[in-house]
Amino acid sequence: MVEGAAAGELLVTLVRVLDLGGTFAFALSGATAGVRRRLDIFGILVLAFAASTAGGITRDVLIGATPPASLVDWRYLGVSSLAGVICFFWSPWIERLHAPVRMLDAVGLALFAVAGAQKALAYGLSPVMAALLGVLTGIGGGIARDVLLAEVPGVLRSELYAVAALAGAGVVVAGNMLDLPIVPTAIAGGALCFGLRMMAIRRGWQLPVANRPPVA
Amino acid sequence: MVEGAAAGELLVTLVRVLDLGGTFAFALSGATAGVRRRLDIFGILVLAFAASTAGGITRDVLIGATPPASLVDWRYLGVSSLAGVICFFWSPWIERLHAPVRMLDAVGLALFAVAGAQKALAYGLSPVMAALLGVLTGIGGGIARDVLLAEVPGVLRSELYAVAALAGAGVVVAGNMLDLPIVPTAIAGGALCFGLRMMAIRRGWQLPVANRPPVA
Amino acid sequence: MVEGAAAGELLVTLVRVLDLGGTFAFALSGATAGVRRRLDIFGILVLAFAASTAGGITRDVLIGATPPASLVDWRYLGVSSLAGVICFFWSPWIERLHAPVRMLDAVGLALFAVAGAQKALAYGLSPVMAALLGVLTGIGGGIARDVLLAEVPGVLRSELYAVAALAGAGVVVAGNMLDLPIVPTAIAGGALCFGLRMMAIRRGWQLPVANRPPVA
Repeated sequence: MVEGAAAGELLVTLVRVLDLGGTFAFALSGATAGVRRRLDIFGILVLAFAASTAGGITRDVLIGATPPASLVDWRYLGVSSLAGVICFFWSPWIERLHAPVRMLDAVGLALFAVAGAQKALAYGLSPVMAALLGVLTGIGGGIARDVLLAEVPGVLRSELYAVAALAGAGVVVAGNMLDLPIVPTAIAGGALCFGLRMMAIRRGWQLPVANRPPVA
Repeated sequence: MVEGAAAGELLVTLVRVLDLGGTFAFALSGATAGVRRRLDIFGILVLAFAASTAGGITRDVLIGATPPASLVDWRYLGVSSLAGVICFFWSPWIERLHAPVRMLDAVGLALFAVAGAQKALAYGLSPVMAALLGVLTGIGGGIARDVLLAEVPGVLRSELYAVAALAGAGVVVAGNMLDLPIVPTAIAGGALCFGLRMMAIRRGWQLPVANRPPVA
Repeated sequence: MVEGAAAGELLVTLVRVLDLGGTFAFALSGATAGVRRRLDIFGILVLAFAASTAGGITRDVLIGATPPASLVDWRYLGVSSLAGVICFFWSPWIERLHAPVRMLDAVGLALFAVAGAQKALAYGLSPVMAALLGVLTGIGGGIARDVLLAEVPGVLRSELYAVAALAGAGVVVAGNMLDLPIVPTAIAGGALCFGLRMMAIRRGWQLPVANRPPVA
């Protein structure tokens, strides 16, 4: 039992480290986009914060869990600001670290999708909607980042990004419906999301677009 | 009395059918815009859902009615996804059905404006603000669709779209202030909104823009 | 004591006048932008309302204070609509009044930042997050205005705008942590924000942007 408690604590620590790691990765994506568009240091910090927290904030507002977690726990702001400052000073260096940043981003997507679905279930949403909110938690930050830069959100046309989030959130929701234990389900969901996303990057998997050429 | 109950049930069914019809029409507008901009199937489904539910979701968040109705009732997601799939496969066909789709869209606008104002009144907002939230319910989806596509919302410069919504919501609010019965008032408001919108389309009615040429 | 009460009342009136003055200035900025982009009269009124209230509305939604103050008190809508109508008819005249409008805008920024931080503290947010919400209250309207016009928000790259708001909100939060009396702290915070903003305009102070040329 003592061993179990220690393992439990280890798991909590691991999830926290991964969560902040995901936040960091998402913040890097926001800050890098800001540097490219010549925002000032404040704009870069805003984009870092928005890209890493907008998904969770929107979820919390929608389920009525206000104030949102990332406005209560200062570490999200701290981690996203750190990412912003790093990008401000060393953005060319970050751009060269393309592969690890992308992998961290996939970790963030997996964690956010799984945690988002779990939180929505805890607030009593139906399974389908909980899965949807898991996806929103995962992709909301990237959408906010792109809207702030007056661009069409990349997730609406990129390689299996949202579908990976949906798969992960779906596993969590299915596990909940079947009364499976939470932790293994969450791990399975996260692993599926992460694996799908990495495969999509490696193989260039894309969702189909409509056949016809644009009409107007 | 039995007759009255039957009529009441018929009315509820009618409103539900019209409500889902309006959702469907708004979702078609979102999905069609997504197809035109070459989004993938996921992006098209997102635009369909956003265009048909963002107005109601924003209203519910603003009045504190969380989680929003369209995240609780799965039929909104179902109907909007159906519209998205149809557009994905047969968008040229949808584009040719211009007139009926526009009429359905006007039905949706009328229903959303009236229902939005009623819900805001039920949550204790003042008449003026309830009318405003009715308008927001009607036009919010179109705004979300255009913002996601990085375009200036069409409703901010199109033919009497918001004004029709305001007229419909205004009738509901005025009826509430005069203690008139709800159902006839709602029907009158919806009919006014629908009629104004169809006339605006047919006759090309526009709101004025400022006289001066753009300064910068 | 009677004198004190009279002075207190005077202060409340003064704050209200300044608050509505700030709303008016922000609404002018939204309406002017709408006129430039050739929106119709409805679009101009929407931009005026969004630019003057989106910051406060977002803050209220995030801290769970729904319905938001500016949807409960009709004067915000009244003042913003007045600004919209004025811009619609006399926008070239408004554009020539550049300096006073900018000063009024700085007043609005100072008031919104200070009041936003105070409200967030009253709802139990931590000092850092209260300062953040003060900044959001001050700059949220301008962000909403620019997003609706499909532009990158100017505040993300303009002269010390957000930093001035942060300084003002920071004074309020610091005063709260040190148990200083509210009114003098608020005045000091507001004066600091206003002063910084005016200096930034006069001297062209800018935040730094990252050194490297855009990569893509």
